[in-house]
Amino acid sequence: MKDSDVTKKYSRIYQEEINKIESGLSTILKNKEPKSLYRPCSYILNGGGKRIRPFLVLTSAKAVGGKFSQVFNAALAMEILHNFTLVHDDIMDNSDKRRGRLTLHKKYDLSTAVLAGDSLVALAYETLIKDCRLNTNHIISTFTKGVTEVCEGQSLDKEFELRRTVTIDEYKTMIYKKTAALIETCCSIGAQIAGASPKQIAAAQGYGRYLGMAFQIQDDLLDLVAEENKFGKVVGSDLMEGKKNYLFLRAVECAQGKDKDALLKIIINKGAAKEEIPMYKNLYERLGVIGDAEQEIIKYTKLAIKKLASLPNKDGRNLMNWLANILINRNK
Amino acid sequence: MKDSDVTKKYSRIYQEEINKIESGLSTILKNKEPKSLYRPCSYILNGGGKRIRPFLVLTSAKAVGGKFSQVFNAALAMEILHNFTLVHDDIMDNSDKRRGRLTLHKKYDLSTAVLAGDSLVALAYETLIKDCRLNTNHIISTFTKGVTEVCEGQSLDKEFELRRTVTIDEYKTMIYKKTAALIETCCSIGAQIAGASPKQIAAAQGYGRYLGMAFQIQDDLLDLVAEENKFGKVVGSDLMEGKKNYLFLRAVECAQGKDKDALLKIIINKGAAKEEIPMYKNLYERLGVIGDAEQEIIKYTKLAIKKLASLPNKDGRNLMNWLANILINRNK
Repeated sequence: MKDSDVTKKYSRIYQEEINKIESGLSTILKNKEPKSLYRPCSYILNGGGKRIRPFLVLTSAKAVGGKFSQVFNAALAMEILHNFTLVHDDIMDNSDKRRGRLTLHKKYDLSTAVLAGDSLVALAYETLIKDCRLNTNHIISTFTKGVTEVCEGQSLDKEFELRRTVTIDEYKTMIYKKTAALIETCCSIGAQIAGASPKQIAAAQGYGRYLGMAFQIQDDLLDLVAEENKFGKVVGSDLMEGKKNYLFLRAVECAQGKDKDALLKIIINKGAAKEEIPMYKNLYERLGVIGDAEQEIIKYTKLAIKKLASLPNKDGRNLMNWLANILINRNK
Repeated sequence: MKDSDVTKKYSRIYQEEINKIESGLSTILKNKEPKSLYRPCSYILNGGGKRIRPFLVLTSAKAVGGKFSQVFNAALAMEILHNFTLVHDDIMDNSDKRRGRLTLHKKYDLSTAVLAGDSLVALAYETLIKDCRLNTNHIISTFTKGVTEVCEGQSLDKEFELRRTVTIDEYKTMIYKKTAALIETCCSIGAQIAGASPKQIAAAQGYGRYLGMAFQIQDDLLDLVAEENKFGKVVGSDLMEGKKNYLFLRAVECAQGKDKDALLKIIINKGAAKEEIPMYKNLYERLGVIGDAEQEIIKYTKLAIKKLASLPNKDGRNLMNWLANILINRNK
């Protein structure tokens, strides 16, 4: 097959599987009562998204010789858990919009959002357990560790907001916990349920971990360099909120004199003005920070792909390779 | 042994086991990072309480022929899960105080309380899994069902606040989910881990369910008839908040004419004034509502105790019988 045919094939498989996931998410709460709890849960579950996490559960199972159908519920569970984190994070970040719609606590109210998030956690466990047969203890422990990490990561993120200085290493620990750990969990659980060996599980997990790191740093990059009409978010919003993302911390590390003062002003003022964004973008370019971020993304993506070598199934491996390349070239 | 000696013996066992639980709760988060997350978690875990739920896990295991030590982690897990519900409920109810101290979101802030609650759920699963050996799927499913029920119960409770009319049956469904389901879960999990038969598990569960119903209705009763200095809470606070508890709903059911109008005024005004409490207490007495509540508590306690008959171990059974009687005579 030609390269373009291969890409078409994987793209089609992704779309087919995501359609099944969408359909699963839209029916999972049907007929559940009370509606005051489950309507808000459905609101967030059916709000779209790339559905990368469930796809990683499926492909990890395939890459170790399993079948998509073995881990369909586990895939749903990971997406449900991800949506729980979105609902509670939006409360903590006081966000008004998510994927172009009102956040859950804005659409309903704070109590409803707290409670909907809580019940999504329970729903995630309930859904995951359906796919657990032999090694339930290990699977549940892995999943639970993912929940813990994501809480710790969010806690560090909030802590960093209040701090003057954060090192790049501290930042990486935070994004590992907040973003990469759940992606790692997806790959680990997919492999575990499909009966992988410890070595294969570790490889799938490593792929997820590095992919997650690349994914988050690219999120940081896209915040500044994306084309606004494709991105769906305001470009430069991290700067406006004074978020200590990779670009910012790397810029602080590299800058001197007046450049450094300009960056520290963002911390003091808890954000930059919209009209200052082009100036800061220019500064970042001058400091080589955008190139550094691109290098980091490429580095982590390569590390992720390298981990695939020890997985036995070619189709699964290729799908994971394809996904890593798609993500690196995404514009939102 | 004389009755008073028996009571002393059970009281001593309860105290000894609760001391171990307290010690377990105070060390479980030691050395965990980040402190910004785990200090608040420790704050709520070490805030005291009767620790009835872990004691029920222990005694249920014993009553089916198991040992306390088999289910120690499961007992901790149930108390941790209970504390998660307290943290998030206090946010939703906008409560300032809990057990004489500031609630977690008042001591810290909203974000910290949301996140601490979330990580307590993960900690509960992590702790529970340590005691799971053979029937993990069933145990995790039971535990997860408990989490779901408690969310549904809280959702119904919030829903009832906004409604004009709530029937006693609807109220019982709500308190079953909000309070009794987790107590039922304690007994079920204790029995399951100790290797009980399905019939024994059902009996232990039934005991927990009825005990939980009695417990909640007594909470409603104590709110009005407790002696303030022993109770630790303001007497009549349910009336002042306009809570549709058992006494209130039963009073609405029985009252006519001016009495009914006086009760409906509470709904319209979303609460009664402090100086009106004696008048309403008097009305409740006149309507026989306090006697009705006492009858309900006795009915559910008897149903609970009846369930113990099919459990094989006498010591465990007696402890559960003792506990039911202690709870019926509590003053806080």
